[in-house]
Amino acid sequence: MVRKRILSGMRPTGNIHLGNLHGALMNWKELQEEYDCFFFVADWHAMTSDYDATDHIKDHIRGMVIDWLSVGLSPERSTIFVQSHIKEHAELFLILSMITPLAWLERNPTYKEQIAQLKNKDLSTFGFLGYPVLQAADIIMYKAHGVPVGVDQAPHVELTREIARRFNHFYGPIFPIPQTILTPTPRLLGIDGRKMSKSYNNAIYISETPDQIRAKVSQMVTDTKRARRSDPGEPNDCNVYSFHNLYTDKEAISRIEQECRKAEIGCVDCKELLAENLTRYLAPIYDKQNYYKNHPNLVTEIILEGCEKARSVAQHTMEEVRAAIKI
Amino acid sequence: MVRKRILSGMRPTGNIHLGNLHGALMNWKELQEEYDCFFFVADWHAMTSDYDATDHIKDHIRGMVIDWLSVGLSPERSTIFVQSHIKEHAELFLILSMITPLAWLERNPTYKEQIAQLKNKDLSTFGFLGYPVLQAADIIMYKAHGVPVGVDQAPHVELTREIARRFNHFYGPIFPIPQTILTPTPRLLGIDGRKMSKSYNNAIYISETPDQIRAKVSQMVTDTKRARRSDPGEPNDCNVYSFHNLYTDKEAISRIEQECRKAEIGCVDCKELLAENLTRYLAPIYDKQNYYKNHPNLVTEIILEGCEKARSVAQHTMEEVRAAIKI
Repeated sequence: MVRKRILSGMRPTGNIHLGNLHGALMNWKELQEEYDCFFFVADWHAMTSDYDATDHIKDHIRGMVIDWLSVGLSPERSTIFVQSHIKEHAELFLILSMITPLAWLERNPTYKEQIAQLKNKDLSTFGFLGYPVLQAADIIMYKAHGVPVGVDQAPHVELTREIARRFNHFYGPIFPIPQTILTPTPRLLGIDGRKMSKSYNNAIYISETPDQIRAKVSQMVTDTKRARRSDPGEPNDCNVYSFHNLYTDKEAISRIEQECRKAEIGCVDCKELLAENLTRYLAPIYDKQNYYKNHPNLVTEIILEGCEKARSVAQHTMEEVRAAIKI
Repeated sequence: MVRKRILSGMRPTGNIHLGNLHGALMNWKELQEEYDCFFFVADWHAMTSDYDATDHIKDHIRGMVIDWLSVGLSPERSTIFVQSHIKEHAELFLILSMITPLAWLERNPTYKEQIAQLKNKDLSTFGFLGYPVLQAADIIMYKAHGVPVGVDQAPHVELTREIARRFNHFYGPIFPIPQTILTPTPRLLGIDGRKMSKSYNNAIYISETPDQIRAKVSQMVTDTKRARRSDPGEPNDCNVYSFHNLYTDKEAISRIEQECRKAEIGCVDCKELLAENLTRYLAPIYDKQNYYKNHPNLVTEIILEGCEKARSVAQHTMEEVRAAIKI
């Protein structure tokens, strides 16, 4: 049976943190069982917001692919590639630009949101406005059946669907309309209680050593109403408790929950346990990271092979596109 | 001595008319003597306004190259190529998109003007807003020393200069800042007295037969204040007189001018003479058109060779660009 194809990408902004791990990668890993997966490092997308700081993108690309492999993305099952190595994305971006109404981009809900959030960057560029067009090119290039996204990314896929429909309307039915595949994302906050994000400097990375993890976990904000050791706590208001739900066995979670409410366990001990469990959870990932770091040629080869597979699909699509638009 | 490089392009919107001939091509022909010229058919640009009608672009490309050759552009001296055959333009367009402020595009004087003029087309697309970015990519790709333009196109070159400067500022001095080379453009109106334009259906094409030329010239609007044959005319208010200035010898022009003012010559005779002289002027162009139409393989070869030369320059530039942006 031919597996349906899905596609997803990630910007090479640095190391993978636990938010990325559970928000995307663990889903990708599972999707490999069922789908023909194309996963790409969106390095051109990194330029939309970081055009003035591209120095480390190449390192980040390798680091990201190593992280992906360590988590369990498999080059035998999936196509792992780098966006900028497939020049066809730029050509399709240019062509889709011509048919994409400005208004569709201007009313993109994440557009103004990001401009408001990233105040220290000048994002009022043509490329930043157009990044959903580039995203549409990335997706439909591979005639993806679906795109796994968290709920906040769903509007982007909707825009891709609109652009694909408009292309088909003008030039003929080249592109299937991709589905949004909503993936569950557990709520993991950063150590300061805000959304976990590299730019907030509050993230725990999957490449960190046990000591680094212990240090970060010890800084985590817990139930802020529990001021003293002797105060009872509320696990549902505690980010450390959310983490336990992912890394600690059910029996221990149930015990912590009860002891916290009765002030029988303190936050320090609770965090010690979390750091221990998190370290144990990450140990195999950490080992695989070391393996790939020690085999750089293997990583290079995996990237090259993935790019070759992707390029061959992209070239075929572009032949169809050029025939359809007659240019 | 190494000749300085210049670059110019034209959209493949159909046949070349006398406005194009004297407004651009005759200048290009002269510039060949002094410069290393790159002339390209801007087929991707044709999509910015005609994205919903791309059926005839391929025919127009060939027809345009034949017209260029017939007018005297020389494949031995100049590089004649087709934009969409050089995929590097799309990649550089994408990269320049990232650094181009939206405001620069929004305040482009021709942007709103064109949207207002072409009311029957929906030009509020992302690609139409971005066409100066694509134009900048076209120009700086070849590290052109200058761009020959009419005065109305000068703001576009200014935008290219700004974009090139901004690239150099972020990533290092890759691109020379191209000069605007203002070229003289004689004022030739269409047969109805409006600007000569294919879309106004008032143009005389260099591919027209003597009969077609005679028919069109006979319809030309003359001095509108000269209602009767017996009324004296004012040559300076007459579009036919402007044409005579290009196609008729000085002695005859001087005679026509005097006779018109005294009503000694009527518009019918004056037009007869113009049709005759224009036909004579176009005869060698017409012959060369027929030659190239009868040698389609030669035209194909000229385009292929031009594209190869252009591609080799573009690939070299993109290697520098990728090294500079580190992607």
